[in-house]
Amino acid sequence: MSVEQGGAQLREARRDDAAELLRLIRELARYEKAEDQVETGETQLAATLFDDGATAHAIVAEQEGRLVGMAIYFFNYSTWQGRNGLYLEDLFVEPTCRGAGLGKALLARLAAIAVQQGCGRFEWSVLDWNTPAIEFYQSLGAEPQSEWIRYRLDGDALNTLARTASF
Amino acid sequence: MSVEQGGAQLREARRDDAAELLRLIRELARYEKAEDQVETGETQLAATLFDDGATAHAIVAEQEGRLVGMAIYFFNYSTWQGRNGLYLEDLFVEPTCRGAGLGKALLARLAAIAVQQGCGRFEWSVLDWNTPAIEFYQSLGAEPQSEWIRYRLDGDALNTLARTASF
Repeated sequence: MSVEQGGAQLREARRDDAAELLRLIRELARYEKAEDQVETGETQLAATLFDDGATAHAIVAEQEGRLVGMAIYFFNYSTWQGRNGLYLEDLFVEPTCRGAGLGKALLARLAAIAVQQGCGRFEWSVLDWNTPAIEFYQSLGAEPQSEWIRYRLDGDALNTLARTASF
Repeated sequence: MSVEQGGAQLREARRDDAAELLRLIRELARYEKAEDQVETGETQLAATLFDDGATAHAIVAEQEGRLVGMAIYFFNYSTWQGRNGLYLEDLFVEPTCRGAGLGKALLARLAAIAVQQGCGRFEWSVLDWNTPAIEFYQSLGAEPQSEWIRYRLDGDALNTLARTASF
C-alpha cells in the first residue's frame, strides 16, 4: 500500500531498498556529524531489517524511482502501561525535498501504525542542538522527557560485564 | 536454565510469574514516585511479555518461592551499526535483598544476552536524580548520552497525528 505526499510515494520499505536506505543513512549521519560512525553495509542492513524475525522496520518515501525519505523504527515497551510503544530510531528527508510535508507524513504514518498496534506512546530522541527538529516536534504536541538520561555500555565494557554473567 | 546469586536463583521469567512481576513493577513505580502511572494488570502484562510475538522479555531473581528482582528488556536498533541493541526498560531488586550483587548479576546476564545476540550496545535510561544508580552504572563503564533528548507523543496528540496519516 502506498500513497502520494508532496510528489513522493510513501510505502513500506522492501529488501531491494537496502542500497538506497544506506545512502540516506549516510546522508543523515553527515548531518548529525557522525558519518564516521556508519559501520553497516547493504547486506547487513537488509538482514537486520528484512530477514524473518527482524525487530526493526522501515517506511520510505520514493520519488521518480529513488528514495528521498525514510523512517526506521522498532517497538519498545512501557512496563507501567504493560504495552508496547513505537520508537522512531531515525527519520530523514533529503534536503532538496524538504518543505513539502514529507517528514510530517512519515511521522503521521508511524503514529497511525502505533495506534493500530495498540501502542500507548510514540517516542524518539533528538540531539539537543537540533533546534529546527525540536520546534517541529513540539508543534506536534510531543513532550521532552528531560529528566531521563540514557546510558550506554558497549565495546570492551560490555564484553567485560557479559563475562561476569553466571548463566 | 538458572543459577544462584546472593541466595537467589536467576532465570528467564515465565507466564506464571505475571502476578509477582506486577508486584515488583508497583514497588519500582513507588520508588520512582510514579505509582499512579502503573496502568497495567496481570493479564495484560502476561500477554505482552509471554504471548507469541511478544517483543519485550524479562529475567527474574527468585528466592524462597517469591520474586525479589526483575529486569525487563527489548531489542532496539542502531542504524549506524545496522545491528540490534539490547535496551533495559526496567531493573528492580527488592530493597531488603540489595547489597548481595543481584542487580549487577541481572545486568551481567543481560550483557551476556546482548553479546550472544550480536548486539552492539546495551542501553537503558535513568532518572537524573537517582544518584546511587548513576554511580553504579558509571562504575560498570556505561556512558551517559546526555546530548540526546527523548520526545514522547501520546494520548490526544498521538491520535491527532495518526488521523492525518494518508495511508
